[in-house]
Amino acid sequence: MTTLSACSAADLTTLLGSTGNATAAAEYICTRFTNTTNDFTNIKYAIDNTYLLFSAYLVFAMQLGFAMLCAGSVRAKNTMNIMLTNVLDAAAGGISYYIFGFAFAFGGPSNGFIGKHYFGLKKIPSQYFDYSSFLYQWAFAIAAAGITSGSIAERTQFVAYLIYSSFLTGFVYPIVSHWVWSADGWASASRDIKSGSLLFDSGAIDFAGSGVVHMVGGTAGLWGALIEGPRIGRFDRSGRSVALRGHSGSLVVLGTFLLWFGWYGFNPGSFFQILRPYNTSDVYYGQWSAVGRTAVTTTLAGCTAGLTTLFSRRLLVGHWNVTDVCNGLLGGLAAITSGCSVVEPWAAVICGFVAAWVLIGFNKLAEKCKYDDPLEAAQLHGGCGAWGLLFTGLFAKEQYVYEIYVYGTDRPASRPYGLFMGGGGKLFAAQIIQILAIIGWVSATMGPLFYILKKLKLLRISSEDEMAGMDMTRHGGFAYVYHDEDASSHPPPGFAMRRIEPDGTSPAPTNGSSNNVV
Amino acid sequence: MTTLSACSAADLTTLLGSTGNATAAAEYICTRFTNTTNDFTNIKYAIDNTYLLFSAYLVFAMQLGFAMLCAGSVRAKNTMNIMLTNVLDAAAGGISYYIFGFAFAFGGPSNGFIGKHYFGLKKIPSQYFDYSSFLYQWAFAIAAAGITSGSIAERTQFVAYLIYSSFLTGFVYPIVSHWVWSADGWASASRDIKSGSLLFDSGAIDFAGSGVVHMVGGTAGLWGALIEGPRIGRFDRSGRSVALRGHSGSLVVLGTFLLWFGWYGFNPGSFFQILRPYNTSDVYYGQWSAVGRTAVTTTLAGCTAGLTTLFSRRLLVGHWNVTDVCNGLLGGLAAITSGCSVVEPWAAVICGFVAAWVLIGFNKLAEKCKYDDPLEAAQLHGGCGAWGLLFTGLFAKEQYVYEIYVYGTDRPASRPYGLFMGGGGKLFAAQIIQILAIIGWVSATMGPLFYILKKLKLLRISSEDEMAGMDMTRHGGFAYVYHDEDASSHPPPGFAMRRIEPDGTSPAPTNGSSNNVV
Amino acid sequence: MTTLSACSAADLTTLLGSTGNATAAAEYICTRFTNTTNDFTNIKYAIDNTYLLFSAYLVFAMQLGFAMLCAGSVRAKNTMNIMLTNVLDAAAGGISYYIFGFAFAFGGPSNGFIGKHYFGLKKIPSQYFDYSSFLYQWAFAIAAAGITSGSIAERTQFVAYLIYSSFLTGFVYPIVSHWVWSADGWASASRDIKSGSLLFDSGAIDFAGSGVVHMVGGTAGLWGALIEGPRIGRFDRSGRSVALRGHSGSLVVLGTFLLWFGWYGFNPGSFFQILRPYNTSDVYYGQWSAVGRTAVTTTLAGCTAGLTTLFSRRLLVGHWNVTDVCNGLLGGLAAITSGCSVVEPWAAVICGFVAAWVLIGFNKLAEKCKYDDPLEAAQLHGGCGAWGLLFTGLFAKEQYVYEIYVYGTDRPASRPYGLFMGGGGKLFAAQIIQILAIIGWVSATMGPLFYILKKLKLLRISSEDEMAGMDMTRHGGFAYVYHDEDASSHPPPGFAMRRIEPDGTSPAPTNGSSNNVV
Repeated sequence: MTTLSACSAADLTTLLGSTGNATAAAEYICTRFTNTTNDFTNIKYAIDNTYLLFSAYLVFAMQLGFAMLCAGSVRAKNTMNIMLTNVLDAAAGGISYYIFGFAFAFGGPSNGFIGKHYFGLKKIPSQYFDYSSFLYQWAFAIAAAGITSGSIAERTQFVAYLIYSSFLTGFVYPIVSHWVWSADGWASASRDIKSGSLLFDSGAIDFAGSGVVHMVGGTAGLWGALIEGPRIGRFDRSGRSVALRGHSGSLVVLGTFLLWFGWYGFNPGSFFQILRPYNTSDVYYGQWSAVGRTAVTTTLAGCTAGLTTLFSRRLLVGHWNVTDVCNGLLGGLAAITSGCSVVEPWAAVICGFVAAWVLIGFNKLAEKCKYDDPLEAAQLHGGCGAWGLLFTGLFAKEQYVYEIYVYGTDRPASRPYGLFMGGGGKLFAAQIIQILAIIGWVSATMGPLFYILKKLKLLRISSEDEMAGMDMTRHGGFAYVYHDEDASSHPPPGFAMRRIEPDGTSPAPTNGSSNNVV
Repeated sequence: MTTLSACSAADLTTLLGSTGNATAAAEYICTRFTNTTNDFTNIKYAIDNTYLLFSAYLVFAMQLGFAMLCAGSVRAKNTMNIMLTNVLDAAAGGISYYIFGFAFAFGGPSNGFIGKHYFGLKKIPSQYFDYSSFLYQWAFAIAAAGITSGSIAERTQFVAYLIYSSFLTGFVYPIVSHWVWSADGWASASRDIKSGSLLFDSGAIDFAGSGVVHMVGGTAGLWGALIEGPRIGRFDRSGRSVALRGHSGSLVVLGTFLLWFGWYGFNPGSFFQILRPYNTSDVYYGQWSAVGRTAVTTTLAGCTAGLTTLFSRRLLVGHWNVTDVCNGLLGGLAAITSGCSVVEPWAAVICGFVAAWVLIGFNKLAEKCKYDDPLEAAQLHGGCGAWGLLFTGLFAKEQYVYEIYVYGTDRPASRPYGLFMGGGGKLFAAQIIQILAIIGWVSATMGPLFYILKKLKLLRISSEDEMAGMDMTRHGGFAYVYHDEDASSHPPPGFAMRRIEPDGTSPAPTNGSSNNVV
Repeated sequence: MTTLSACSAADLTTLLGSTGNATAAAEYICTRFTNTTNDFTNIKYAIDNTYLLFSAYLVFAMQLGFAMLCAGSVRAKNTMNIMLTNVLDAAAGGISYYIFGFAFAFGGPSNGFIGKHYFGLKKIPSQYFDYSSFLYQWAFAIAAAGITSGSIAERTQFVAYLIYSSFLTGFVYPIVSHWVWSADGWASASRDIKSGSLLFDSGAIDFAGSGVVHMVGGTAGLWGALIEGPRIGRFDRSGRSVALRGHSGSLVVLGTFLLWFGWYGFNPGSFFQILRPYNTSDVYYGQWSAVGRTAVTTTLAGCTAGLTTLFSRRLLVGHWNVTDVCNGLLGGLAAITSGCSVVEPWAAVICGFVAAWVLIGFNKLAEKCKYDDPLEAAQLHGGCGAWGLLFTGLFAKEQYVYEIYVYGTDRPASRPYGLFMGGGGKLFAAQIIQILAIIGWVSATMGPLFYILKKLKLLRISSEDEMAGMDMTRHGGFAYVYHDEDASSHPPPGFAMRRIEPDGTSPAPTNGSSNNVV
């Protein structure tokens, strides 16, 4: 932070001249300045780690959000199954990301394709990464796998899940994050000048991962769901779409709000550091403002997308539907994730508005193609994620791109930014390349994997099991037991919940039917 | 933070005198001090924004808490409806507060009634507000509307909700927050001396919004529920109160704990800055201590109110009732919100104790008046909120009032504080004025609005819809589907959940009845 | 933080010599250095309090996690009862810990057994503790009681709960935390040298409370459950174990994830300060790294234990069981809690692996002994907690023990660390002593208490109440009302949820059966 040269006792001695004991005086003063500088360094690490660690905890909370959203969106008979996959995304991802995932992603200096240091967290902490960096990135990695498990819910063998999830979290995803986020990555907007030139002199800007996380998870889910085919009963004999409603709207809303809550770690946390001045004339303006602005753009995109979905679905379907609003809102959040830090708040409103229609459009298309995705995950994370990358190429603001991506000693005089903001088409072109690269890479890896699993008869469960539900056949029982198995614990006849509020004087009548109370 | 004058090279040159190159030496030294001072400024912004942003995220989590509390407190058939209103409070509030709400509330310099800058976040960040300020205040604004939706739950047309909610979040609430919290507000305890004199030389102290948030939401809800009338079946033909129990105690407890969790952002976060020394002889004492103390008073008031409710309801009704305890606890939290920062922990215990009885009393009164409020929102947020304002007028401590509300250059020699603490009646009088002003303003705006909606037949749903439930008639379906629609997915006869834990050796018997498992 | 001596104007005057106005120059310079040092002090308090307060909020969220985990793990008929105990642990614990609990635990200077200052938070903030310390420790204290209530769920009188819970939170637990965590405690690894010598020159290392919190809660639960005996129907006439399944897998997963989330406050928060440099040659390495590392070890232990449980239960029982995975994961977290800060990440993997088997073993043993613990609390928190203490004695790393437990002026040249790391057996011996002391103390206090309650017929509910469920008989009603009591609100015949997704053109057919929709 301190850009001034360190206090030099020799220099100061010369300046103080022949006075008293100039050497000692200079040393006395400089030692104290050095000490102050050291204190600053410590303060900076403490603040930035506090900010990053608590952001990581929030991102982790998204895994809970996913679990609840998924659980509520599937039928009751598959609740335990889908929740188990969510718990395991976190658990298995923790081990694989520790052993090699983080190394593949961020193990520089390396090449543009894959990292090669930090296996098993060796040499962490380093000058570049502390344990908090690993924790933060792990929480991101497990989110991608969670998206995919939504697409293929209610019909996938558990062993297939174990295989594709490990492969996705441990290899496919880290590679993409290396490309876009590491200092070596071929598409990275923060590529180190020593690693090579920027893609189109710009690099792709995917600040918090509309592409790296959401498109990766969504594209993988798309292939899984396509290869598996729709759930039994999802389309009737005449080919009409039949809604297989999730079993709990409350869990859907709970999950959506938790995801929104966690997104405040996901997007504003992706700066990694909050204590960095931008050295403008306004002393109150620095990276802390950019972090706050990112939280605001995130909020506005989600809000706009939710509202847009509310009214458009009311017009299209006739209901005020909370589940649709939740999905729309999440689509807005997935879309803004790429550009959240480099756009103005008003642009975030546009981002959310379009994201809602992108989701509606892709859902229509999915229905036409008889594509069945219980969580709309490919449409939402894949579709809105891709829109987010394009949006960034259109609306990224010069000043913000400069502040976030250009620092250090080698500042180029100019740098591409959003097409609609007058920044030329180079950034937009880089964004398109990123979209194509992600679709290509994920398709080339996950597509064959799902296909092989299918050929090995490891992918889809039997139709008997699908009808009965996976919880009963594979996971030890149904998720809910509201009625007691033991008949004698039923309320005796004539005993029922009091319906009249007791006031301490008159005895409360009973309503005679035990069926009403349970 | 640094109150010392900046290092002046000219001054220091004179002091160093004719030694060596005094001018250069002085400049050498002063440059470094200036640099240090700048670093301090940056550090302060980084710490304060970290603290405020994470507090804002916690306050946002309260919206999830409200959603779950409301959902659990209504009947299953209206769950989707009430959750949709909670999601929309956040979404619509985000847009309206961005465009004009924040400007109405904090857009100074302005007049005592309404703000007039920062529309669409123009000129943010400024010297006074950063993006984090907006996010924090938005999370507050949406809470008020959430309270109101509880009061009129289970019988209100969705279009009426859209109208009153926008009006409340976008206009009614921001005005009140301008009065009490802005530097211009006529009732503000932190009013800028240039904006005019303090109300009764004191201003009303409503630190985190017992009045501004809770009473506003509660009073609006009161008018809505009064004008709509009670739900069908809430009072029987002989006028006796009939409990229309909420459908899920688990969601009520979930919501209550989430609200409590979020309250740690609401109250301790309302300092906006945590790095401010109080310059006492105890170096360890500063605003960071006051933030912690506020978390403690918040905790103690909630705990005491919960416990008081437990035992008093046991005496009055005969049950140990967790729903009552939850409501009591929230009443204690709503009450302490006004004075949380300016009272001692022991006073918070008194605050919570009285709050529990205030809630019990208002609930009795509501029953007498055949007032039906499914969430007890008017009683809880309105009643306990008003008590909280009075409490502050009685128990505010001189030292804390001074530390929090008196700083800058114009420190008056004395300032009113709590009546029972020897601080005279001026603060108490200001608190009463605030209560009356809030009731008056909200009644004058929201009362007519609800009345007009009623006259336009836009307020209440039809009795058929009310009986059938709004989810089925308006929101696309029931919130829960525990039993599969497809009969063939029922477990076959003789198949049931294993009741004997498998030990790997003996086959588990089945209990023969499929009814028991689902 | 600043270890350099304060800037002395007198000294500097001498050094500057006869130049100009040396005295004034020295004072000019030194005043500014002093000011800088003061600023540092304030910054340090602000950062550390921010970190500690938000950690405390996370630990508080664990209480919600417990409530949901417990609720989901019991039968529906006892949901309200168990959630009420969880709410009250927080509420009653808040009051008792405020009045005397914190004083018993941390009220030094005192003796090795019990503290004696800070009753009612008198003289807080002090040089050693701020309000944030109290809040943090309160959130820990209420966790212990929550564990115990799980062990004796579904059969305990509410009045018994009120008694043992107060006794445990207010007395039994604070004493143990005094022993192990205070500067006076006889077993404390951070014992002040003036208070006496360290146990085996080492003290027991229980960084975040595998013993102090988890074993205390688990041991108390063990005695309660043993003295009460199993729930009716838990073992059939031939003595075989019968699973009394909890009523909601979704709540179990929700609770588990919330506990995991809160654990990031529990373990990494237990440093109390994040701004402390370790003064190594790597400037980026300091307590902030240790905090991050602790979050990583916590994560890895939980992940490994969850995975190990998944596969081992699959082999043993034949199911992929999410409830078991959740319990295994929590066992891993409980185990790593003791050594989280002083072991390497790879060691955390070992910790979690063994913890999973410890839990499986203790569960087998419990079944053999006909011990019934609805939450497996004694096995999980007691068993895995004890393993965690042993693990720390085996794997604690010299460097980390030194950095965390040895600072201040009296640094011994060496200090015992993990047996397997070459640190000798002294730490391991201290860990064993801590295990024995906790078991002894809790057994000696809680055992007789439960026995007396039983003799007074205050402990267990009647078998009629147990069959009917406590919610109906004691807590005012069943937790869930999914079906409306009012028959007329059932959907009319022929009216049912639309199964075909509306496309705006063709009317949707209905499926004719109202039973399917609710």
